[in-house]
Amino acid sequence: MPALSRSACVALDASDPIRHLRDEFALPEGIVYLDGNSLGARPRAAAARAAQVVEVEWGRGLIRSWNDAGWWELSVRLGDKLAPLIGAGPGEVVVTDNISVNLYKLLSVALAVQAERDPARRVVVSERRNFPTDLYIVEGLLRQLGGGYALRLVDSPDEIAEAVGADTAVLLLTQVNYRTGELLDMPSLTALAHERGALAIWDLAHSAGAVPVDVRGADADFALGCTYKFLNAGPGAPAFAWVPARFQDRPQPLSGWWGHAAPFAMEPAFRGAPGIRRFLTGTQPIVSLALVECGLDPFLRTDMATLRAKSLALTDLFIQLVEERCAGHPLTLVTPREHARRGSQVSLEHPEGYAVMRALVERGVIGDYREPRILRFGFTPLYLGFADTWDAVEALRDVLEARAWDAPRFRERAAVT
Amino acid sequence: MPALSRSACVALDASDPIRHLRDEFALPEGIVYLDGNSLGARPRAAAARAAQVVEVEWGRGLIRSWNDAGWWELSVRLGDKLAPLIGAGPGEVVVTDNISVNLYKLLSVALAVQAERDPARRVVVSERRNFPTDLYIVEGLLRQLGGGYALRLVDSPDEIAEAVGADTAVLLLTQVNYRTGELLDMPSLTALAHERGALAIWDLAHSAGAVPVDVRGADADFALGCTYKFLNAGPGAPAFAWVPARFQDRPQPLSGWWGHAAPFAMEPAFRGAPGIRRFLTGTQPIVSLALVECGLDPFLRTDMATLRAKSLALTDLFIQLVEERCAGHPLTLVTPREHARRGSQVSLEHPEGYAVMRALVERGVIGDYREPRILRFGFTPLYLGFADTWDAVEALRDVLEARAWDAPRFRERAAVT
Repeated sequence: MPALSRSACVALDASDPIRHLRDEFALPEGIVYLDGNSLGARPRAAAARAAQVVEVEWGRGLIRSWNDAGWWELSVRLGDKLAPLIGAGPGEVVVTDNISVNLYKLLSVALAVQAERDPARRVVVSERRNFPTDLYIVEGLLRQLGGGYALRLVDSPDEIAEAVGADTAVLLLTQVNYRTGELLDMPSLTALAHERGALAIWDLAHSAGAVPVDVRGADADFALGCTYKFLNAGPGAPAFAWVPARFQDRPQPLSGWWGHAAPFAMEPAFRGAPGIRRFLTGTQPIVSLALVECGLDPFLRTDMATLRAKSLALTDLFIQLVEERCAGHPLTLVTPREHARRGSQVSLEHPEGYAVMRALVERGVIGDYREPRILRFGFTPLYLGFADTWDAVEALRDVLEARAWDAPRFRERAAVT
Repeated sequence: MPALSRSACVALDASDPIRHLRDEFALPEGIVYLDGNSLGARPRAAAARAAQVVEVEWGRGLIRSWNDAGWWELSVRLGDKLAPLIGAGPGEVVVTDNISVNLYKLLSVALAVQAERDPARRVVVSERRNFPTDLYIVEGLLRQLGGGYALRLVDSPDEIAEAVGADTAVLLLTQVNYRTGELLDMPSLTALAHERGALAIWDLAHSAGAVPVDVRGADADFALGCTYKFLNAGPGAPAFAWVPARFQDRPQPLSGWWGHAAPFAMEPAFRGAPGIRRFLTGTQPIVSLALVECGLDPFLRTDMATLRAKSLALTDLFIQLVEERCAGHPLTLVTPREHARRGSQVSLEHPEGYAVMRALVERGVIGDYREPRILRFGFTPLYLGFADTWDAVEALRDVLEARAWDAPRFRERAAVT
């Protein structure tokens, strides 16, 4: 069956039950934004909230706002608000720091747990194609620990089963790959880790808010992720960490005063706070942190099943339209076709991927580029529609047909690509 | 000589050469704000800057703002802007994370340097009365390192000399004590550490922007501090770390992707960036980070010598007025009288300190309280004047004379005190 016409896409938008949620986002005119997997669009509410925090809470409330405006409770309160999106319970999630720092904490605890259970387990297994910061943090921590710890990288998910063995302490995986958009099976890979005596840490950077996640249902051990992608919390907004109750009483190494049982008693010795609060480090950036709530609120007006159904419909449509309308151009689909293995993005390889994306952005279709040769298109069903998808493919077709990408200004590399 | 009259204070304000800088801050009517040592007041420019980052850079620029709005460079650019305030050079300071996380990085590097020079040096010396998060982070790191590392705490600065010996790796001190306002002599204590073979790490949380600091002149080894106190950068704004060139090529354990030599090459192995950038972890909270600049800009229109002279005049006046006008009440001066040993705050002990401060705040004089029994009054010469100081003492006198503090609502403890 041929893909839909643009007017059929417009009709689909008109009957989309969550079409109105788009109005909660401030999208610039004339732009199709397909980079919500890197930086989510701005919720309209964020402007007023930022003004309130800066002008009223900070400006007028001053120091009193730590109590009166609830700043002190934000990390934990927002963690509870985020929790349902990943299948976590109350008191299990905290919004704080960034992924790199949070992974350092969680992996430290996981390795300490394993050192008690079986000191021979000193290997962390992950994917070579994992988002690099995860691998870099493993390196940093293992260097610190010394003593025979090692990182073992596999080249593809197929190799995970044979890589996890009697020497493995932790299986560290990202549920949706940042480059390919491939979605891993969290329940079965966690079960595999557990069968072999390893703990499973899941990075949800590209899955929280993008696909239904159930950390409890999958029996995962730890999880973390960021809020500025599909959760639309703003540039560099603090990340989140999930620690189930069974690991919450463990010491974590970045034991700053926000994780103390009585932070204002100013005791010289550390006593960890009960619960998830122990995974806080020190003072958090309140303005950025407060905006996380503006990103989470739209999710209260829908559910992940609805969002997932629309996300798959959008990415299906995108794939089909590209294959029909851009046929004859050297585009290769990188993202799995199977729904069960696809996140909320579509990646295409093109020999001139970088220049193609630059030319496309100039035409108002904003995706991004990742080495090597990958065009990434993220689909955020909260604010993207079917006609947007049609228009994006049409712009891509145009760029390819006219060889618009073949210009020096598109080939020159920017600092951040 | 008796202290000044209020009209003499008004005259001093009128002839104050930096009086106009007060206009750069949005202070609420009817408030005397003496808590800039905990959370600096809001620069007026912060409201427009927050709106620009949220509405224009995030909302319209979207992902393009990482390049176009300079987000990617903010941590390093703001570090260079902050550097002169602490006597650091360009490329030596980065604004990132919080004090707890930054101390973990710097102390890790310092201990690694010492482990190479002399593995017998495994003691960190600090003050028991240091701000607790510094001690908690030492604990967390030493637990992680295992192997005979220890923290040695002294009860007063007088004991530092005998505590630093052949087993000492690092002397970790805070230049201005958060509770007493006592200013330590950075050059001589650093020299002492070096004579005994130890490295010196300085926490500048209560000195950056409050007193002239010269980390290079003092030959310090590492320094860090926060931006939300005397630097007026906003609630929980990211902290700073100073690492001189001689230590910049060392690995630090929180080696996230922002510290990689080629972050967008997405290499699986870590290669540290040259220079101070290596001390970055991962993505930073851009809205909060951008506001740091609004806090730093007013310092460009004066200098630390001018600010220090006014700060000492204000704290001298405050001490003298309290001693004259509140005589007969059980107030004890905790902060040193000698200028060379005083930061930019005055602490007073009162048996009912908590309730006294609550009553004072209700009258519009905002200081804060620290265990045990300490009333803290911070003096930010950028926005405080002599008449403010006079009014604050008058309110304190009033609260004490009328025993206004002796009410149940002032004795009940708030969550954050």
